[in-house]
Amino acid sequence: MRVVSLMRLGDEETRLREQFPEVTFEFYKHPAELPKETQKEMDVLISYHSAVNAAFIEAAPNLKWIAWYATGVNSLPLDLLQKRGIKLTNGKGVHAQQLSEWLFAYILDDFKQLKAVYNEQKDRQFNGKRMSKTLDNATILFLGTGVIPQRAAQIAKVFGMRTIGLNTSGHSAPHFDETYRLADRQQWYQQADVVVNVLPETKETYHLLALDDFKAMDPETLFINIGRGTVVSTDVLVEALKEKIIRAAYLDVFEVEPLPADSPLYDLDNAYLTSHITGNGADNRVKATQIFKNNFAHFLNNKTLIENVVDLNKGY
Amino acid sequence: MRVVSLMRLGDEETRLREQFPEVTFEFYKHPAELPKETQKEMDVLISYHSAVNAAFIEAAPNLKWIAWYATGVNSLPLDLLQKRGIKLTNGKGVHAQQLSEWLFAYILDDFKQLKAVYNEQKDRQFNGKRMSKTLDNATILFLGTGVIPQRAAQIAKVFGMRTIGLNTSGHSAPHFDETYRLADRQQWYQQADVVVNVLPETKETYHLLALDDFKAMDPETLFINIGRGTVVSTDVLVEALKEKIIRAAYLDVFEVEPLPADSPLYDLDNAYLTSHITGNGADNRVKATQIFKNNFAHFLNNKTLIENVVDLNKGY
Repeated sequence: MRVVSLMRLGDEETRLREQFPEVTFEFYKHPAELPKETQKEMDVLISYHSAVNAAFIEAAPNLKWIAWYATGVNSLPLDLLQKRGIKLTNGKGVHAQQLSEWLFAYILDDFKQLKAVYNEQKDRQFNGKRMSKTLDNATILFLGTGVIPQRAAQIAKVFGMRTIGLNTSGHSAPHFDETYRLADRQQWYQQADVVVNVLPETKETYHLLALDDFKAMDPETLFINIGRGTVVSTDVLVEALKEKIIRAAYLDVFEVEPLPADSPLYDLDNAYLTSHITGNGADNRVKATQIFKNNFAHFLNNKTLIENVVDLNKGY
Repeated sequence: MRVVSLMRLGDEETRLREQFPEVTFEFYKHPAELPKETQKEMDVLISYHSAVNAAFIEAAPNLKWIAWYATGVNSLPLDLLQKRGIKLTNGKGVHAQQLSEWLFAYILDDFKQLKAVYNEQKDRQFNGKRMSKTLDNATILFLGTGVIPQRAAQIAKVFGMRTIGLNTSGHSAPHFDETYRLADRQQWYQQADVVVNVLPETKETYHLLALDDFKAMDPETLFINIGRGTVVSTDVLVEALKEKIIRAAYLDVFEVEPLPADSPLYDLDNAYLTSHITGNGADNRVKATQIFKNNFAHFLNNKTLIENVVDLNKGY
């Protein structure tokens, strides 16, 4: 049994070897360092590197399982994995805390007008009359009701917000006051002060949000995207913001990444942009390795995986 | 029975007159508009204006109750109220939500490095490697365990933080993992990533925090003051920040307010200043009037007050 990781895992490397002494573990700093012979023989792959494409999989005929350390699996050739019978797990849950913290950093930055406040500080102005909106009683609508939006909705509830979640079937989910079908989304937008996209990238979510979606929202809406940038085309997003169809947006993900320096998004005065960093966390690899260990113990015993298994048809 | 308010209360004025038709209510936009004769005769005063000083009270010989719409009562002549037997209630609880939201706006602004992040946006830089601290497992220590810190600690717990509260006797309080005596504070500071002052201004809390307090903290500590500015002298605070005895501070209250434009606090690169605005809220007057109504119904019946009664000896 050969397990290959396309990144170094620090102290976790020793722990893996101790816990599974009969297994050969190899850790490479970069996919380019992986010997062709090893690629041919490896049984299990740990990675979230974009180098893992169809050609890479073709050159790994013995591969049985990819332990993907990110949550989004859209860069992988899912059809090929399915054809080859290669299992796939992801890092779902590992990033829920970080993404939720960033989400509330964005919302509070907006609601408390922090940028205007600190401009006053630069001007040495004391403006005791400033009044800011409260999260209390505001409504937040999530596109998606999975592990990440559930964690975020839990925090939203404690702040006193009303939580609406949209998913394929409209099924209920923890920490959501109401859930509806994603297909009916345009009839619920008006209720929301904040609309958050947390959907994965799939065939169904690619360019899901059209200009009509933004037109169906309240003009005061704050839109936040911490899911995948491809849920809306840059053109639509720029028009919605430039024409003030909605009030403002905080965006961490983009249709094309890295975001080109000449992107029209940079020219807007109501778009706040971060660099796909809301999932970054110092202990992400430790947490993802814990999921790997739980799965690997079962995999060695009976070839089954118990956590974070990706449905290759759905893509999440 | 004459009730005088030194501010206009909007729709609440009609509601008060409807609920208590036998009572004379008078609403003035500013204390200067109050006729001397009315001041002499009024039984109850609604205000949180600094004009309500010893001379003002002396000129109101019939006054029996001040319904103070702010939480802090330090600007009032408490000794005189006690001597005259004038009851005092405050706005405790009205501001808990707003102050808690601001507290997490500050913490997330700091932990997520928002200022640095948006400087990158201005430079059209995409920096996908940025790593930020998480609130999860961080420790927050509150000076004070009253209504406001309890609400804030409730939110801290859902973010996954450990909560320590300090009060006079060390008694336990809701949403605090641990509580200790304020007098022993220097032995607990090292545990905290964030130290928050929410203490009222009293004889005991005036200049409570000395340079030794900041020296007892971890050098990475974030200090936040949303209580009263007089808990620490400006000189001590400037030294603690200038000499990097602690890492940074978010300050909404100051020893002298409004903060003078030549305050040395403006010259620091690790102090973020707001203008005593964390309690401002559009519905504060409605909430404070609800407390007034609850109390007033009892006051009319049997002269007792049931909510938010201030202990004139303690000053809160």
